[in-house]
Amino acid sequence: MQSDLFDEDHELFRASVRGFVDKHVVPNMEKWDAQRLIDRDIWLAAGRQGILGLSVPEEFGGPAETDYRYRVIIQEEIARAGASALQSGFSTNDDIVLNYLLRHATDDQRRRWLPGFVTGQTIGAIAMSEPGAGSDLRAVTTTAVPDGDDWIINGAKTFITSGILADLVIVFAKTDPEAGSKGFSLFVVEDGTAGFTRGRKLDKVGLHAQDTAELFFDNVRVPAANLLGERGAGFAYLMQSLPLERLGIGIAAQVSAEAVFGWTMDYVKERTAFGKRIGEFQGMGFDLAQLRTAVEVSRAYLDRCVREHNSGTLTAVDAAKAKLWATELQGRVIDAGVQFHGGYGYMMEYPVARAYLDHRIQRIYGGTNEIMKEIIHRDLMKA
Amino acid sequence: MQSDLFDEDHELFRASVRGFVDKHVVPNMEKWDAQRLIDRDIWLAAGRQGILGLSVPEEFGGPAETDYRYRVIIQEEIARAGASALQSGFSTNDDIVLNYLLRHATDDQRRRWLPGFVTGQTIGAIAMSEPGAGSDLRAVTTTAVPDGDDWIINGAKTFITSGILADLVIVFAKTDPEAGSKGFSLFVVEDGTAGFTRGRKLDKVGLHAQDTAELFFDNVRVPAANLLGERGAGFAYLMQSLPLERLGIGIAAQVSAEAVFGWTMDYVKERTAFGKRIGEFQGMGFDLAQLRTAVEVSRAYLDRCVREHNSGTLTAVDAAKAKLWATELQGRVIDAGVQFHGGYGYMMEYPVARAYLDHRIQRIYGGTNEIMKEIIHRDLMKA
Amino acid sequence: MQSDLFDEDHELFRASVRGFVDKHVVPNMEKWDAQRLIDRDIWLAAGRQGILGLSVPEEFGGPAETDYRYRVIIQEEIARAGASALQSGFSTNDDIVLNYLLRHATDDQRRRWLPGFVTGQTIGAIAMSEPGAGSDLRAVTTTAVPDGDDWIINGAKTFITSGILADLVIVFAKTDPEAGSKGFSLFVVEDGTAGFTRGRKLDKVGLHAQDTAELFFDNVRVPAANLLGERGAGFAYLMQSLPLERLGIGIAAQVSAEAVFGWTMDYVKERTAFGKRIGEFQGMGFDLAQLRTAVEVSRAYLDRCVREHNSGTLTAVDAAKAKLWATELQGRVIDAGVQFHGGYGYMMEYPVARAYLDHRIQRIYGGTNEIMKEIIHRDLMKA
Amino acid sequence: MQSDLFDEDHELFRASVRGFVDKHVVPNMEKWDAQRLIDRDIWLAAGRQGILGLSVPEEFGGPAETDYRYRVIIQEEIARAGASALQSGFSTNDDIVLNYLLRHATDDQRRRWLPGFVTGQTIGAIAMSEPGAGSDLRAVTTTAVPDGDDWIINGAKTFITSGILADLVIVFAKTDPEAGSKGFSLFVVEDGTAGFTRGRKLDKVGLHAQDTAELFFDNVRVPAANLLGERGAGFAYLMQSLPLERLGIGIAAQVSAEAVFGWTMDYVKERTAFGKRIGEFQGMGFDLAQLRTAVEVSRAYLDRCVREHNSGTLTAVDAAKAKLWATELQGRVIDAGVQFHGGYGYMMEYPVARAYLDHRIQRIYGGTNEIMKEIIHRDLMKA
Repeated sequence: MQSDLFDEDHELFRASVRGFVDKHVVPNMEKWDAQRLIDRDIWLAAGRQGILGLSVPEEFGGPAETDYRYRVIIQEEIARAGASALQSGFSTNDDIVLNYLLRHATDDQRRRWLPGFVTGQTIGAIAMSEPGAGSDLRAVTTTAVPDGDDWIINGAKTFITSGILADLVIVFAKTDPEAGSKGFSLFVVEDGTAGFTRGRKLDKVGLHAQDTAELFFDNVRVPAANLLGERGAGFAYLMQSLPLERLGIGIAAQVSAEAVFGWTMDYVKERTAFGKRIGEFQGMGFDLAQLRTAVEVSRAYLDRCVREHNSGTLTAVDAAKAKLWATELQGRVIDAGVQFHGGYGYMMEYPVARAYLDHRIQRIYGGTNEIMKEIIHRDLMKA
Repeated sequence: MQSDLFDEDHELFRASVRGFVDKHVVPNMEKWDAQRLIDRDIWLAAGRQGILGLSVPEEFGGPAETDYRYRVIIQEEIARAGASALQSGFSTNDDIVLNYLLRHATDDQRRRWLPGFVTGQTIGAIAMSEPGAGSDLRAVTTTAVPDGDDWIINGAKTFITSGILADLVIVFAKTDPEAGSKGFSLFVVEDGTAGFTRGRKLDKVGLHAQDTAELFFDNVRVPAANLLGERGAGFAYLMQSLPLERLGIGIAAQVSAEAVFGWTMDYVKERTAFGKRIGEFQGMGFDLAQLRTAVEVSRAYLDRCVREHNSGTLTAVDAAKAKLWATELQGRVIDAGVQFHGGYGYMMEYPVARAYLDHRIQRIYGGTNEIMKEIIHRDLMKA
Repeated sequence: MQSDLFDEDHELFRASVRGFVDKHVVPNMEKWDAQRLIDRDIWLAAGRQGILGLSVPEEFGGPAETDYRYRVIIQEEIARAGASALQSGFSTNDDIVLNYLLRHATDDQRRRWLPGFVTGQTIGAIAMSEPGAGSDLRAVTTTAVPDGDDWIINGAKTFITSGILADLVIVFAKTDPEAGSKGFSLFVVEDGTAGFTRGRKLDKVGLHAQDTAELFFDNVRVPAANLLGERGAGFAYLMQSLPLERLGIGIAAQVSAEAVFGWTMDYVKERTAFGKRIGEFQGMGFDLAQLRTAVEVSRAYLDRCVREHNSGTLTAVDAAKAKLWATELQGRVIDAGVQFHGGYGYMMEYPVARAYLDHRIQRIYGGTNEIMKEIIHRDLMKA
Repeated sequence: MQSDLFDEDHELFRASVRGFVDKHVVPNMEKWDAQRLIDRDIWLAAGRQGILGLSVPEEFGGPAETDYRYRVIIQEEIARAGASALQSGFSTNDDIVLNYLLRHATDDQRRRWLPGFVTGQTIGAIAMSEPGAGSDLRAVTTTAVPDGDDWIINGAKTFITSGILADLVIVFAKTDPEAGSKGFSLFVVEDGTAGFTRGRKLDKVGLHAQDTAELFFDNVRVPAANLLGERGAGFAYLMQSLPLERLGIGIAAQVSAEAVFGWTMDYVKERTAFGKRIGEFQGMGFDLAQLRTAVEVSRAYLDRCVREHNSGTLTAVDAAKAKLWATELQGRVIDAGVQFHGGYGYMMEYPVARAYLDHRIQRIYGGTNEIMKEIIHRDLMKA
C-alpha cells in the first residue's frame, strides 16, 4: 500500500527536488566520498532551489513552510540517490539546529542567524556528545562560565555532524554544576571565534562524505547575545527538540528502507540463476514478502507520526517509537538487500553496499535505540 | 499512539456493544467452553442489539451500514472480553458469508436469506476446506452435478467454523472437472436438506466454544435457486471475497494483541518480585517497549486498510499483508504475554492462557501465512 | 549430525525403555488426559522395568547408575511418544527430589525414603513456589517453627508438579526470618501427615495428565528427623540442585524439539498441495533447514552439558544456558511444527497439538527464562 | 562453557601463533588496509613460523599435520587481532587450494606446487565465480579447449580472493558443453602465463587489505600437465572440496564472533553512563546473555564438526549447517557489538567497526546462506 501522505503540491515540490538531486547530487557523490567532504557549493545550490530552511519565517527570508511533508519529500528524493551523507547534513540544519533557533532565539538572533539557513550559506551543527558523555547527557563536562557580560566556554565535543564545515554550532554546556538538570545552557558559537577549533575528521564506518568531527573549546569567549534561550534551560530544550530530531531519523530510515528495497527488487528481477530470475525462488521470495510488508506497515506509522507532528501533537514517546522502529526496519532491509545482491552486495559500486556502511549509525545517534526502549518502557510503567 | 479511526458515532456504538458483551458474553464464556458450544441465544441477543448483519440493506431488514469501522468496534469489544470463539462465529457471518450473499445473491435469494443474518436467526458457514484440500482449493473433490433443474452434491468438508450450528452453508464444489479454475461453483445448502449431515465437532487446541466440524454431503439435492452467482465462477468469487475475510482476521488479530498487551501490562504493574513491580525490570521492559511499539505500528497499517476497504480500494495483496502481519504480531504478543505472567500464564483462569489456545489458528486459517507470503511474493515479482 | 553421546549399553537400555513406553504409556495417554491424572500403575510398571531411581545406591535398592545419559534416553523415548506429562513426573522424581535426598539425607532418611523411588511406590514433589513467590524464592512466607523436637509448618504452596499424587513432599520453608538467605530450610512432609492437604488440581494450558496442584500446610507437625540437611541451608541447597533440574528441563526441551521436528517432517513429506509434497516448497523448506540446523547445533551443546554433568563440572551458569537455549528452541520448533501441519496442527488428534499445549510451561518453570538470562548476565559482568 | 577441543600440544602451538600475530600482523594491519594489499612478507614470515601448508606431506616439505584443530588455532589467533583479510588469504591457501591439490594432484604436480604452500612462497587462488555465475556454477562460461597436448582457456572470473597476489590459480572451466555437470574440469594457471591478466582490485565493503580481483583468461595456453585430476570431474571435485571450505568459513565466523563478543564485554564493563557500567543495565544484559549463550552453543557444534572432519566423516550437509549457522551467529554478534559500543562502534579505530565491514561477505561467499539452506532442505526431503 502506498503512502497517502502527499497531495498535488507536494508532488510538484518533489519534481523540483528530484531535478536538484539528479543534477547536483548524483554526479558528485563519488567525489565527495573520495575527498571525505561535501562541497559547500551543494548547500548554496540547495538554497537557490528553495529546499533549505523551509520553516524559516518570511521576514527572515524563508518560505515559512511548516508542513513537515515537504521535508519528507526531500528525504525521499535524497534517499533514492543513496546520498545519506548529504541527507544527514541537511537534516542537521533543518530538523535540528533550526528547530532550536526557531524555538528559542530572540528576534535579534533570528535576524543574525536565520537567513543563512535559507540560502545555504550557514551550515549548522549541534554539539552535545562528549568522549565521556553520549546517551547520558547529564554527564557532559564542557562548561560555560560567566565573565562580565560574556561567557567563557571550555571543553571538548565529539561525534559532531558537520563538525568541520559548520559556521554555527549550538553548544550544550554546564552553566551551574549544582543545579542538576537545570544546570545546562545552550550557546551559539560561530566559526572564527577565538579558541574554537576543529579536531580531526573522524574515520567512520560509513557516511564518508560527511564531516563528523571533534570540536574543542579553549577559553572560547562568547557574548551574552549568543546564549540561546534561558540560562539553565538547556536540558529542557534538548528534551523539547529531540522528538523532531528522532522523527527526522525515523523518516530517513523509512525512506532509505524503501529505496534499498526497490534496488533489491530490481536486482532480483534481473539476475538469473538456475534458469530463473533469482527473485522467483520462494525461499528468497518469502523474505522479500515479509520485508515488503514490514516496509509498508512501518510507513503507515511514520505517516501517522508526520501528521501528528504537523498538528503539534507528536509526543516524545511516539517519536522515540518512530526512531526505534524505523531504524530497526532499515537495518533488516539493508542486511537482506546486501544478502540478496550476492557478491555484488559487497561491492562498493552497488548503492546497497554504501547503504550498508552509511546506515549503521542510525540505530545509535539521536539517542541509541536502547535509550528509545527505555523511554518507551518508562512511559508504559507510568501510564 | 492511539488509533484515529473512530469518531463520535462509532464511540456511541461502542458503548452499546460493550454493554452487550458485559451482559451477555462475559457471564457465559466458561459455560460455552465447558459445553463446547455457544448457545444460539447469544446470536438472537446480538440481533436484538443491532450488531449483526450490519451491511444488510434496509429492504432486507438491515441497517445498511457498510462502514467497516463498526465491525472493528465489535471486534475490539469482544477481544477485550477474550471471547475469540464468539468473535470467530460473528466474523464468519458478517465478514464472510454475508459478503458472498451480498455480492452474488439474486433478489429472491436475498429475500430468503438476508433477514436472518440481521436478527441472528441464521448462522452461516462456508465450506471450502476438505481433508485433502486446504490451501490448494483447486484440489477439492466435492462435486455438484446437474440433475434436471437441481444439483446433486457429494463430498466431505472439514474445519468448518460454525459447522454444527450453521443453518446455511455455502459449499464450494466442482461443477466442471475439465474447466480448471472455472470449474467450481458455490451452492447454498440449508439445514435439514436430505443427505446433509454434520460430523463430529473437532477437538481443537483452542476456540473450545466454537463448533468447528466436518460436514458430509451424500447425494444432497438442491434446486437451481440455491446456486450462488454464476456457474463456474466459484473460484473467482473466492478470490474476490478472501480480502475481506483476511482483513477481518487481521483486525481480530490486532485487537486481540492490544487486549492481551493490556492484560499483560496490568499484571506486570501489579506483580512484585525482588522488591519491585516486575514490569520495572529493564530486561522485561525492553521487550514490552518493543511490543508496544509493534502494536501501535501495526495498528496504523490496519487502520489504513480499514479506510481502504471502506473506499473500496483495498487490494487482495494488501489484505494478505494485513492478515500476515497482524497474526504474526498477535502470536508474538501472546507468547510474551504468557511468559510475563509467569506460572499464571499457564493457568486457564487467566485470559492470556485462553488467548494462547485460541489464537494459534489465526496464522493458519483464511489461507495460511505461507500462502499470504506467496501472494505477496508473486505480486512483487509481477510489479 | 547425530548425537555421539551414547554407546552400546545405552542403546540396549533404550530398547528396554522403548518397549515400556510402547506397552504402558502410549495406550494410556488419552485416558490420563481425560481423567486429568496419570495412574499410579505406570509408576510401578516403570519401577519393575528399572527406569526409576537410577541414581539410588545399591544398598537402598537402586542400580547406582549416575551416568546421566540413561536419563537422557528415558527422556528421548518418552518424548517420542509425546508423553510430556509423564516425563514431567518422572523428571521431578529422578532429577529433582532424588537429587535433594541423595545430597542431603542422612542414612536413616535414605533408608526410609530411597527404596520407593526405585520401585515407583514413592512419588515425590518439591514445594517451592507460593502464590506470592515464584522466581523470587526469598519471598516465600511458609514457615517452619521449632516446637520441642518437632517443627510446625504453616503456609500454602502452588504450581506443585505431582502435587495430588505425591507421597513425599520436600517443603521449602522459612525457619529464621532474620537470617536472610540463611533463614530457609527443607523439610520432608509425607502423605497423611495431619494438617497437610491438597488443594484443587490446577486447570492448565496443557500437561493435562499431570497433577499440578496447590498444597496447604496447616500446623503440620513433622519430627526433626524430617528436616533435610542442615537448618538454614535450604536456600543454598536449592542453588546446588537447580542446575540438574535445569539440565533436565533443557534435555526434555531438546528431545521434544527433535521429536516434533520428526513428526513435522513426516507430515510435510506426506501431505501434498499444488501437485507437490508440501515440504518441497522452498519457502517452508528454508525454515525447516534452519530449524533442523538449530536442533542439531543445540544438541551438540546439550550433549556437552550432559558430559560435564557426568564429570561433576557443569556449572549453574552453564545449566542456565542449557535451560534457556533448549526451551527457546523447543518453542520455535513447536510453533513451526503446528504451522506446517496447517489446520491439522490445531487438532488435538495430532501429537504436535498436544506438544503446543504441553511445552509452554518449559520457558517458565525451573526459573523463568528471564531469570536464566539474569544469571548469565551477572556471570558475564563478574567474569 | 569453554571449548574442549584442544590439548596441551595445541596450546603450545597457539603460543607460537600468538607470537607471530603480535609481532608480524598487529603492527601492519593499518598499513595493509591503507595500501589495500597485504605484503607478501607476511606469507614468508608465516612460512618460517610453520603455520602454512600444515597438511602438506613431509616429502614435499610440510609437517603433514592433518589435525584440523591446528588450523582452528590459527584462525582463533588471527581473529583475536581482527585480521580478517589475512585470515581469508591463509584460509584460501590452506583450506581450499591445498585441499584440491592434495586430493587430485599427481606426484609430479605435488612436487611442483606443494612446497611453496609450506614456505609461503606460493599464494593460491581458486577461480570459480564469474560475473554471470555465482551460486549457479553450472552457468560458468569460461572454456578450456584441447589443442594438441595443451588446453586453451578463455573467460573471465570475478570475486577471486588473493586474485592480485596469486601465483597459482585453480580455474574451473567448461571442457565439454554437452556433458552437463560432467563437462567441467580444473586447471592450474600459474602467474606469468601468457594471456592471464588481473583486472582491477575490487572495491569492497570491507576486507580492504585483501586483494579480491577479476581475472581474465585470453587464449591462455596451459599444458596437459596443468589439468588437475580427471577431465570432466571438475564439478564433482568442487562438491568434494566445498565442505572443508565451508567448515573453514564456519570456524572463521565462530572465532570472530567469540573475539567480538570479548571486545564488547570489555567495552561495556569499562564504559559508564548514568552512574553504572553500561553492561550492568539489564536491557543490554539480557541481549549479552543470549548472545553469550548462542556463542557457546554454536561452539559446541563447530567443535563437533571439527572432530568429524578429523575423522573423515563430516558430510557436505553438516558442513553447510556449520557455515550457515556460524555466519548467521557472527552477523548477530557483530551487529550487537557495534550497537553496544555506541558511537564508538561506528569509528574505525575500534576493531568492532572493522569486523562490521569485514564479516558481511561471510554469509555470501563459499555458497550463499540461501544455497546452504537449499542443500539442507534437499537433504531433509531425501532422508
